[in-house]
Amino acid sequence: MTVKQITSPTNPHIKDIKSLFLRKYRKSTGLFLAEGLRNLLEAAALDADIRQLIYLQDMRDRPDVATLREQIIARGGLILEVNQDVLEKISRKDNPQAVIGVIRHQPKDLSAIDATASKACWVVLEHIHDPGNLGTIIRTVDSVGATGVILVGQTCDPTSVEAVRATMGSLFTVPVIQCSVDNFLAWLPGWDGQIIGTTLQDSVDFRSVAYSNKLLLMMGNEQSGLPPELRGRCHHLIRLPMAGRADSLNLAVATGITLYAALHSWQA
Amino acid sequence: MTVKQITSPTNPHIKDIKSLFLRKYRKSTGLFLAEGLRNLLEAAALDADIRQLIYLQDMRDRPDVATLREQIIARGGLILEVNQDVLEKISRKDNPQAVIGVIRHQPKDLSAIDATASKACWVVLEHIHDPGNLGTIIRTVDSVGATGVILVGQTCDPTSVEAVRATMGSLFTVPVIQCSVDNFLAWLPGWDGQIIGTTLQDSVDFRSVAYSNKLLLMMGNEQSGLPPELRGRCHHLIRLPMAGRADSLNLAVATGITLYAALHSWQA
Repeated sequence: MTVKQITSPTNPHIKDIKSLFLRKYRKSTGLFLAEGLRNLLEAAALDADIRQLIYLQDMRDRPDVATLREQIIARGGLILEVNQDVLEKISRKDNPQAVIGVIRHQPKDLSAIDATASKACWVVLEHIHDPGNLGTIIRTVDSVGATGVILVGQTCDPTSVEAVRATMGSLFTVPVIQCSVDNFLAWLPGWDGQIIGTTLQDSVDFRSVAYSNKLLLMMGNEQSGLPPELRGRCHHLIRLPMAGRADSLNLAVATGITLYAALHSWQA
Repeated sequence: MTVKQITSPTNPHIKDIKSLFLRKYRKSTGLFLAEGLRNLLEAAALDADIRQLIYLQDMRDRPDVATLREQIIARGGLILEVNQDVLEKISRKDNPQAVIGVIRHQPKDLSAIDATASKACWVVLEHIHDPGNLGTIIRTVDSVGATGVILVGQTCDPTSVEAVRATMGSLFTVPVIQCSVDNFLAWLPGWDGQIIGTTLQDSVDFRSVAYSNKLLLMMGNEQSGLPPELRGRCHHLIRLPMAGRADSLNLAVATGITLYAALHSWQA
């Protein structure tokens, strides 16, 4: 039975789905949640492994929902048709999306990077803390046509509900590599492209650098910036000039500004 | 008695403070919450009207807390010394800040804008929906030394906890004007500077425009972009080129990228 009607918020399926709000259950199951019909259609189009599809009963007869349902059933997935009451239990939002998916995460490590490609732009995020920032950066990387994101060290989880929401579907397009600081430092000598880091110390205006079309762009974390062991590996250290009272930009904003400067020539 | 010790989460003061999480109570009282010692020191330095200061008992003897306390008492404010249990009740975060302030909001309307200034850059946000985006844009406006923000129409609240948190203290520096669409349209003919809007329709690459140093930069909302009645008032319509699968950037990221382009010459 691959299609179930669920009307009780205490149903064990619903309990399992709610557990995916917690990182430890995402880790132990390898599953995460994505909300919204548009996101799930995107995920399916990009061949994400959707294990469960949950939607409000009223959505059942929509043609796009029906197509999605058939695809998921064909891959052995489960369909849960729920009422408003149940839906609200598996969303933290006041206005929950009417369609939610449980998706298998396919983690990638540094071996997924083609270091021999002649053209690439990877954004390296070291110890990034905020899932909203991470999701927004994944979306920006997609928007500008950069290659992907490398998460270095202890970072927030790209599959948390907040991060997935902020990616607006780009999580299914943009490769996200995860690695330790040590593994990243060991991998780095094999990268023959340009390496640029953003930092306040000993850096130049980001508009004064000639960006290569094979680039690693390293961004430090929200609090402490880029640590010395990564700064020391950069060909150029850049900063965004500040002209007000605030002494820093939001990390996702800073990454977007830098990517537009770096890719000006690269996109052409 | 201007310093009170509170150990019960059901104390009426705590109930009043918690009510400020809701927009209707912020509106009826004219008060809002700001978290974090650094933010509150910034607020005090910029002469914000801090009506209440709430902190963990352990913070009592810190010199910066003592100075802040004396300033607030001198202005007739109230001090609440609380325990961890109470603090957690007035924060939605898992790791609440140890210092929280209740601040009087000083709303500004269009009359606060000096339309005769020879140099200015106002960011106009029409129907902005997300408080995190709004707070981040206020922070960016501060960082780049732009003049302020004009909120047009039904927007999210710049004094919500989420927005204030994202401003990182810049709410106390950056003027935030609030007005209806009709009032804004009536005010606009008195503005003799450049007007630029971001939109996908009939627009040019944002890097191809010569930005003036007296500028209104209009950004549409997260979903529908800039409406025709505002687009029609612009001297230039610009867009950020997209090169990937995603068809838009996060609003705060797009605003940051545009401001850096616009202020390149202006800041010099």
